[in-house]
Amino acid sequence: MCRWLAYSGSPILLEELLYKPQYSLINQSLHSRLGVEPTNGDGFGVGWYGVDRTLDAALFRGVGPAWGDPNLRELAGHISSPLFLAHIRASTGTPVQHTNSHPFRHGRWMWVHNGAIREFPKVKRDLVLAVDPALYTSIAGSTDSEVMFYLALTFGLRENPVEAVQRMVGFVEATGRRYGVEYPIQMSVGTTDGEKFWAFRYSSEGESRSLFFSTDMTALRQLHPEVEALRHISAETRIVVSEPLGELVGAWQPVPEATYGVVQKGADLMAPFQPIAP
Amino acid sequence: MCRWLAYSGSPILLEELLYKPQYSLINQSLHSRLGVEPTNGDGFGVGWYGVDRTLDAALFRGVGPAWGDPNLRELAGHISSPLFLAHIRASTGTPVQHTNSHPFRHGRWMWVHNGAIREFPKVKRDLVLAVDPALYTSIAGSTDSEVMFYLALTFGLRENPVEAVQRMVGFVEATGRRYGVEYPIQMSVGTTDGEKFWAFRYSSEGESRSLFFSTDMTALRQLHPEVEALRHISAETRIVVSEPLGELVGAWQPVPEATYGVVQKGADLMAPFQPIAP
Amino acid sequence: MCRWLAYSGSPILLEELLYKPQYSLINQSLHSRLGVEPTNGDGFGVGWYGVDRTLDAALFRGVGPAWGDPNLRELAGHISSPLFLAHIRASTGTPVQHTNSHPFRHGRWMWVHNGAIREFPKVKRDLVLAVDPALYTSIAGSTDSEVMFYLALTFGLRENPVEAVQRMVGFVEATGRRYGVEYPIQMSVGTTDGEKFWAFRYSSEGESRSLFFSTDMTALRQLHPEVEALRHISAETRIVVSEPLGELVGAWQPVPEATYGVVQKGADLMAPFQPIAP
Amino acid sequence: MCRWLAYSGSPILLEELLYKPQYSLINQSLHSRLGVEPTNGDGFGVGWYGVDRTLDAALFRGVGPAWGDPNLRELAGHISSPLFLAHIRASTGTPVQHTNSHPFRHGRWMWVHNGAIREFPKVKRDLVLAVDPALYTSIAGSTDSEVMFYLALTFGLRENPVEAVQRMVGFVEATGRRYGVEYPIQMSVGTTDGEKFWAFRYSSEGESRSLFFSTDMTALRQLHPEVEALRHISAETRIVVSEPLGELVGAWQPVPEATYGVVQKGADLMAPFQPIAP
Repeated sequence: MCRWLAYSGSPILLEELLYKPQYSLINQSLHSRLGVEPTNGDGFGVGWYGVDRTLDAALFRGVGPAWGDPNLRELAGHISSPLFLAHIRASTGTPVQHTNSHPFRHGRWMWVHNGAIREFPKVKRDLVLAVDPALYTSIAGSTDSEVMFYLALTFGLRENPVEAVQRMVGFVEATGRRYGVEYPIQMSVGTTDGEKFWAFRYSSEGESRSLFFSTDMTALRQLHPEVEALRHISAETRIVVSEPLGELVGAWQPVPEATYGVVQKGADLMAPFQPIAP
Repeated sequence: MCRWLAYSGSPILLEELLYKPQYSLINQSLHSRLGVEPTNGDGFGVGWYGVDRTLDAALFRGVGPAWGDPNLRELAGHISSPLFLAHIRASTGTPVQHTNSHPFRHGRWMWVHNGAIREFPKVKRDLVLAVDPALYTSIAGSTDSEVMFYLALTFGLRENPVEAVQRMVGFVEATGRRYGVEYPIQMSVGTTDGEKFWAFRYSSEGESRSLFFSTDMTALRQLHPEVEALRHISAETRIVVSEPLGELVGAWQPVPEATYGVVQKGADLMAPFQPIAP
Repeated sequence: MCRWLAYSGSPILLEELLYKPQYSLINQSLHSRLGVEPTNGDGFGVGWYGVDRTLDAALFRGVGPAWGDPNLRELAGHISSPLFLAHIRASTGTPVQHTNSHPFRHGRWMWVHNGAIREFPKVKRDLVLAVDPALYTSIAGSTDSEVMFYLALTFGLRENPVEAVQRMVGFVEATGRRYGVEYPIQMSVGTTDGEKFWAFRYSSEGESRSLFFSTDMTALRQLHPEVEALRHISAETRIVVSEPLGELVGAWQPVPEATYGVVQKGADLMAPFQPIAP
Repeated sequence: MCRWLAYSGSPILLEELLYKPQYSLINQSLHSRLGVEPTNGDGFGVGWYGVDRTLDAALFRGVGPAWGDPNLRELAGHISSPLFLAHIRASTGTPVQHTNSHPFRHGRWMWVHNGAIREFPKVKRDLVLAVDPALYTSIAGSTDSEVMFYLALTFGLRENPVEAVQRMVGFVEATGRRYGVEYPIQMSVGTTDGEKFWAFRYSSEGESRSLFFSTDMTALRQLHPEVEALRHISAETRIVVSEPLGELVGAWQPVPEATYGVVQKGADLMAPFQPIAP
């Protein structure tokens, strides 16, 4: 479906993760190894906070394949960020257009998704009706992923992110099942407010899209000697990815089924994810 | 705002109307004379029925300016049609994307619009909720124009087009006024089922976007000696346009305020347009 | 690198070959099985002659992946042609832009290419200088493929197509070798004047890109029972493709190394291809 | 034809000049007042050096109209630069494609142009042949503007910019006249190496495209009280534009016919421009 990557740590040029690693995200756009689809050529996006984090995130999104976009290549070589999300899209049916490329943004928040709400056309109206009317007109595109984001915002993402996502998933599952959908949701989701970063891995059928956390910087530096920048970054730096950027055993820790993680100052956190029924 | 054109009559190459006249639609994309905005560079589209009219209309839509699109130029020089709609867009705020370019199509029907639903973000949710749930998921873009189309379909466009558009307008006006919008709607609209063609000119404030019918083929041939094809077309041929394609006095008949017209086999029709309140 | 398809025979809707077969060209844009690259997402194009063949070919070319292009899907479902070329591109380094998408066209002629002139930046200037100055300004893009076309035109493509292509290849090989390139050219090429169609398979190293001719209509109809249109087409109909559209043994005849073929009224022709040194 | 802007001074967000002024460059893309064409919707670009100027300039270029590009809007609000060029294009015939959008870049150098080489198809081959073969393959697009850049590089732009541009213009004029072109060149040109900035105003007929220097910061701050950032910038800051960004008398100094200017540390320079015949 899609692939995504989140980085939190010492500011680095985007290209250090988007282009340089052996199985970089841009390489995955053409040849994903773990994805349902090997090609993710239906648009892309990157959202980054500045070094001082005073402004909301900047977004750069495109509608063609990431692998050939000259502007993405340029920007990645000139923009440094301490916290960024990148996404490459393989459409599950909705149009390839700017407003359907991830990340989605609302105020300080960004959101990326890999997966699908199954039989989305059947349930879309009910889901959209449940979005807070004050948020409704901020929905700019037509994807299931963006509706998930606005449902999560409706359910309190800005106050209690984990509970809000659990309620969103519970609501999507309840709605889907009302329409006879056996496994209503499949997802890995990344979201951030510019300070912390949350990752979620879940699916109704218990076979979720892959998701990995970088373990520790020692292992990661060993994995990517070609990535000069990794040598200089802080021990707290974390990378979360749909699939590993290289092959060294032990460097990437798979996120278990039905689990969420929080990347934050101090100790990170990983805990079971449990949908909350409406 | 936008500009549009409808043609019904003997099959002609699209370029005869899109490119060859002095003030052709493509010329209007760069230099409209009567529009609110002189430039209509935010996408374009053309929808045409084949000579045998057995298939639904074909759509070709783009997101760049019409004046420089090499594919539109190619197609216009190779495709003949007895009934087509063309549209050039100047966005009033919604994104420039394929799904927001006119014509919109649903089954046999096509729809083009010039104008706006005022303060659309305020009223959008209420309008979309009134769309028949069975039609809801066919809404692909984010424009006011497409919502007008699906409301008209909901109100019976396929059975009684004039009444359906009158009910749509009445509903949009009632909704807008509930939110304090003084003049909720401004429009010229063209719609067709592949047999007949309907044009509507209306605005809440009584100062609607311009709209013109070609009068008769004798005058029109005199107006456009440069358009060879006009010499060979049937007397029943009609062109409806946002602004005249040339300057000969008497060739173009302005559609009066609050009026609709029907282009059909036999005598055409023009009559007052009266919104029907919900 | 790329994939292409040529059709000559009874007029059919483009979609019969571009979308409906099991391994259709559009399917190959995402998952080619025989190509050097599985993904051909760097633009596409189709060029077709009308049923009466009086006009030059029409071109529709795009810069995104063919698999998701809504305009290509529309046109393929509405345009019939007795002779058309289609191409999906995987760039070997030159930019993804309209003017680099195949087919290329000059007057009545069209040209598609799969392969590469090796180390093209080294030899480009010498090759371009050899193009007839009267043709020079017709070169609109920056690909090796288009330079091959204009060299072939310079060497007499319109008068003696086979000899012209042989001289073009001989010239490219001589030029490349002067710059130390061991295997200067790799190609399958298709070209047509709207009446006949020529296909060429050749590479300096003797391991050319795959190329197949459809054998006879009886076998092909058996191969594609899902393609209704094949039942009604003439016995002279021929399809030439980079890779077979389905799997029935015997339906597709591989073109041997260093061979060209001519599709024409009456008996087709296949003969050895021999570069002519300058 | 086109419009451009150059900024050199205290680092500011790009949006301070691209979007905020009354007649900002983005506003000019839709409604230029002094240009030959009021609409400049055929692509755009911005090239900027980072605050530390250690990297080559970054380029962001697009093919649609600047006024509606969501990525340009995002980047302009997040990227600060002490030296940048921006350009909006109105094509004089060459394709609208990424490689034809300005600025052009070669190593440390960038180049923008407004105007035309007249009857470019006639003279293009002779001009391109005069480009240093080592530079030839760096020509990525098909515009006259880029050929002017590579001719200037050939004639020593990196060593002696003024003389190189004078020799380029002399060569273009001599070549054009050999083909019977009365007024071979029309131009305002901006170029920079990341340290200094050079502007040129010249045309064979002595009626060149308009060009203006900002006079001094006191006047400019008075002109743009709405531009908060101008209050904080250094006295050495300079803006060079195709047309003034506002209307205060005395704030903008027209560059005289056949003149060049240099923006640099210490006193700037303005002097007569005289083509050097080959």
